Amino acid sequence: MIGRLAILGVGLIGGSLALALRRAHHVGEVVGSGRRERNLQRAVELGVIDRYALDPAEAVRGADMVVLAVPLGAMEGLCRQIAPVLGEQAVLTDVGSAKRSVVEAVRAAFGRLPEGFVPGHPIAGTEQSGVEAAFADLFYHRRVILTPLPETGLRALGEVREMWEATGAVVEEMSVEHHDHVLAATSHLPHMLAFALVDSLARLEDRHEVFRYAAGGFRDFTRIASSDPVMWRDICLANRDALLEMMDRFRDDMDRLSQAIEQGDGDTLLEIFQRAKQARDAFAG
Amino acid sequence: MIGRLAILGVGLIGGSLALALRRAHHVGEVVGSGRRERNLQRAVELGVIDRYALDPAEAVRGADMVVLAVPLGAMEGLCRQIAPVLGEQAVLTDVGSAKRSVVEAVRAAFGRLPEGFVPGHPIAGTEQSGVEAAFADLFYHRRVILTPLPETGLRALGEVREMWEATGAVVEEMSVEHHDHVLAATSHLPHMLAFALVDSLARLEDRHEVFRYAAGGFRDFTRIASSDPVMWRDICLANRDALLEMMDRFRDDMDRLSQAIEQGDGDTLLEIFQRAKQARDAFAG
Repeated sequence: MIGRLAILGVGLIGGSLALALRRAHHVGEVVGSGRRERNLQRAVELGVIDRYALDPAEAVRGADMVVLAVPLGAMEGLCRQIAPVLGEQAVLTDVGSAKRSVVEAVRAAFGRLPEGFVPGHPIAGTEQSGVEAAFADLFYHRRVILTPLPETGLRALGEVREMWEATGAVVEEMSVEHHDHVLAATSHLPHMLAFALVDSLARLEDRHEVFRYAAGGFRDFTRIASSDPVMWRDICLANRDALLEMMDRFRDDMDRLSQAIEQGDGDTLLEIFQRAKQARDAFAG
Repeated sequence: MIGRLAILGVGLIGGSLALALRRAHHVGEVVGSGRRERNLQRAVELGVIDRYALDPAEAVRGADMVVLAVPLGAMEGLCRQIAPVLGEQAVLTDVGSAKRSVVEAVRAAFGRLPEGFVPGHPIAGTEQSGVEAAFADLFYHRRVILTPLPETGLRALGEVREMWEATGAVVEEMSVEHHDHVLAATSHLPHMLAFALVDSLARLEDRHEVFRYAAGGFRDFTRIASSDPVMWRDICLANRDALLEMMDRFRDDMDRLSQAIEQGDGDTLLEIFQRAKQARDAFAG
């Protein structure tokens, strides 16, 4: 049970977390903060938060749990604003899609890694964003990865774990580095491919024709290209090394594929497609 | 109304066409042919075809309409088998995902392009294959592209158009070259990306871990990597030039993206992601 929860950034993730915790009666009061007052007013109207403060320092005052739910690029600035007022006993966590960069942001802002800080990442979301898209079931049966640090205290870790479990999520722990590598592979690289593909086609001269004939497979394949551009810019910059490594691997694989097509090498093509189908079927099954 | 229809290759597409035409009372008798007798028996059991002949020459004898629904790589061999017996008045069409290669296969097998030949391509399908996956609604409200040739007769063109319209499809016409370019962009390239991505991840040492943390976006994004490997090998080889051109364009775009990430160029990243999101939202909306 969290007495007072401060959600900094009341969007799809922050808003859904608040809704889930309210439903589970796992929270007393929810205070929101964010840059756009209209959004915060809407969050109050929707019953997502009880009240808000435009100043994040004011929002975290007296909070037992503080959740950073802003784009990665805004983390450090936000932490600098709350560092002077965050309570000694307060637990601090985040929902960022890359963990190394959040750890560095917190370290830079606080001058150290607080015992109460537990980096976290719910593997959930839709291509929607904003508090209007928030819903209490977003994390139900989804994974939440926590990447506790040597400095992290067990009490804080336990409270963050309990918070996510109250939303119906399955909580797992791994290292910051492993998280960033796994997410680069399964989320960040696919988003780069979807964005690059749609952008590639959008710049064709006959793009209207081209999109006209796109079928269901294309629709599914490119759905993630509707994701929030600012969030993804920040993820790219925040998880640069792991993402570039995966992009390099992928480029090599695409080059091998191009070469096989160019050479009319049907055996290699079949081998690649069969291995991929097998892996995909095993994953989905 | 088609008196006798021969479906050569009774799989997802050929089977669904037969089911749709039967439901619309647009066909008298449906004769199937294929390499695997068990599959043809199953097609009879499922009410997809009335009877079958293992020898395609036997299947097309007396047929008013012949539909080639085999992988692209099998087209030429199949055409050579049926060329000697195909009736003078018979209409010949296909469902291949690349059109230049089918035109060349027909020309090679017949020694000319018959007046009754109408290249076609229904933009429909699922990642399933085989007659068990066939269903009468597959083409409903989907586009079917016909790419008539200078040699094509108007009667044949009209009959193929009526056949597809009877399934509920929307029929459009374009040139062979334009078809192959558009499909390379909207279908063949996305499939290459999905296959290459899944194969890339499947060859990571920690692949089990990696797939474990893949979420819904990844599932949608990679669904098409479950498609039939043989069919896709053939499409790659058949639409090589248009596909390689699109793959080159895509590689350049990915390189630009990598470079922006490497240089920490947030403005370029934002621009790419915004343009892609706009195009995707416009397409979906």
